[in-house]
Amino acid sequence: MPFRDEDEFVQWLQRQWPGGERGVGLGIGDDAAIIKPTPGCDLVLSTDLSLENVHFRLGLHPPRSVGHRALARGLSDLAAMGARPRFALVSLTFSPKIGKRWLTEFYAGLGALAQRLGVTVIGGDTSVTGGAPVAVDVVAAGEVKRGKELRRSGARPGDCLFVTGTLGFSALGLEALKSGTSGAGAVRSRSPYQTAAARDSHAALQTHLYPEPRCAAGAYLAKRGLAAAAIDVSDGFARDLGRLCEASGCGARIREDQLPLPSLEGIRRVRDAGGSNKLDLGLYGGEDYELIFTVRAANASRVPRKAAGVAVHEIGEIRSKKGLVLVSSDGRETGLEPRGYDHFRRFADGHRSRS
Amino acid sequence: MPFRDEDEFVQWLQRQWPGGERGVGLGIGDDAAIIKPTPGCDLVLSTDLSLENVHFRLGLHPPRSVGHRALARGLSDLAAMGARPRFALVSLTFSPKIGKRWLTEFYAGLGALAQRLGVTVIGGDTSVTGGAPVAVDVVAAGEVKRGKELRRSGARPGDCLFVTGTLGFSALGLEALKSGTSGAGAVRSRSPYQTAAARDSHAALQTHLYPEPRCAAGAYLAKRGLAAAAIDVSDGFARDLGRLCEASGCGARIREDQLPLPSLEGIRRVRDAGGSNKLDLGLYGGEDYELIFTVRAANASRVPRKAAGVAVHEIGEIRSKKGLVLVSSDGRETGLEPRGYDHFRRFADGHRSRS
Repeated sequence: MPFRDEDEFVQWLQRQWPGGERGVGLGIGDDAAIIKPTPGCDLVLSTDLSLENVHFRLGLHPPRSVGHRALARGLSDLAAMGARPRFALVSLTFSPKIGKRWLTEFYAGLGALAQRLGVTVIGGDTSVTGGAPVAVDVVAAGEVKRGKELRRSGARPGDCLFVTGTLGFSALGLEALKSGTSGAGAVRSRSPYQTAAARDSHAALQTHLYPEPRCAAGAYLAKRGLAAAAIDVSDGFARDLGRLCEASGCGARIREDQLPLPSLEGIRRVRDAGGSNKLDLGLYGGEDYELIFTVRAANASRVPRKAAGVAVHEIGEIRSKKGLVLVSSDGRETGLEPRGYDHFRRFADGHRSRS
Repeated sequence: MPFRDEDEFVQWLQRQWPGGERGVGLGIGDDAAIIKPTPGCDLVLSTDLSLENVHFRLGLHPPRSVGHRALARGLSDLAAMGARPRFALVSLTFSPKIGKRWLTEFYAGLGALAQRLGVTVIGGDTSVTGGAPVAVDVVAAGEVKRGKELRRSGARPGDCLFVTGTLGFSALGLEALKSGTSGAGAVRSRSPYQTAAARDSHAALQTHLYPEPRCAAGAYLAKRGLAAAAIDVSDGFARDLGRLCEASGCGARIREDQLPLPSLEGIRRVRDAGGSNKLDLGLYGGEDYELIFTVRAANASRVPRKAAGVAVHEIGEIRSKKGLVLVSSDGRETGLEPRGYDHFRRFADGHRSRS
């Protein structure tokens, strides 16, 4: 056992997160944490499980990545609401075989992302269970000016449809990780002389292991009242867009040639067989943690090419007819099933496992 | 699989928790939940894991109890802070073998407690994983008037020491459950003609399966500024009192004959062998979710015999000398090790498993 008892572990955590930040009434070490809400703001709360063999594999994902990804999932939820991230609580259950090194790296990965995005870890819960898989639950708390939050349900027919960043990098990165095409350790080095292919396969691995929640972009859109509806891409673009449309009671047309996808060269670098279905990666890949959002047509010209440093792409429009439709460059329309990653379907009809 | 996909499950949850309560900006179904903080109040947040084979066993605990206990753990944390419980988020991971009936009962147990204590479930996360144990993480959110919260660190030498309710019932109830002395189904029936023994063994089972978080008592103590420090009994009286003393930089003397323990008759009804060490039950049992609190000596007379309907017992005092000391009725003092249930020690030195 890396720690003598739970109290020693909590003291170790307290040294990592000494607290004292603005808005924290009470941090790690009491029965509960205390937050001092900012006047005029609402509090936005999400809770996200990250489970061994579902969201990560110990043999595939370095502990630093497991910690980063566990927090990123929660922060991405806040980003989709347009909320500024403030606090996190981290619950962790692990078996005695997990060493102090793994725990240190896990919290280092989580902590680096937290610090960079201004998030303070204020509490959590820990349990050591023999033989059980590692399970993490992250509570992310953020703030948003009252009435400024972005909801899934705000889209209306005629809205323009946007997405940030690139779709499919995370799924491609997972493929690279599984096939051993690229070592996870290589992610931190970056040469300015890379080819487009090298750049894309690097970005794929980086996005998979260390996804960047679009908090600044989400807050930008909320603050300016630009977005009418938003959701983050966690289970796959088609599935999450389907959810936004469902909540808004409408459908969407997506222009295939406008979707921001990895380059074919980048994909081929990962897939030896040269598998070229990059569209599937982007539509169903999941875990990209990009933002899908809609904007009233009258405001569309106000949407910048980059929001808070992240590329923004106009990819289609919202329409009253339900369902998703993909329009190819020659104008042909095909129905798009709102599928993607689903923990339930995996077992219901043998859907692929994520990792 | 009890549900076709995750969306159907979320819709099922939304029907159980339609929302619309005061203070809820946005409930189940979006990327995150939104809370509208009450002006002048701080927000109190706790997160608690409940794990199969650690906190409960599927063969021993009915699903209704698993749900109740998972939420009670979190609400007890809020009680110990003197906070009024308001909201909860429930994360759940289960294997496909878990049926809709189990889930329905789990949420019914959790929901009944939530409704009774004015708690609205506003979100969560769900994952289905083959073969993995059931794991629950409950986020409990409450509110407390700014500056009125109870902390572990507020005790001072000379404070009088109090505890609510009875200590040891939960551990005794677990013994009854394991030995099959009393069926869990019997808990709901109660005859006015019971003997003291029957009453106590019934109370033990009830406390173990459906512990009552002392939210009203905690809020009562905080509102009146009566308690100087507080903690809830989750891992055992000695261990949790040790934590309160540690945080306050002091120690405590406990008068053995003042400790509220189950009757010997009640214990003997559970333990066929007539094991009589009822003190161990009360000191180390854990999961009673009673409140330990201290009161400045000058205020001690203001503490009622019952706070919000719960019996309150004065059991000793805080002193500057560190460590815990138990004083027997003949005045003999013995050191009391602050041990109890510890997920870490279980594996470090073969400490007993809780259930």
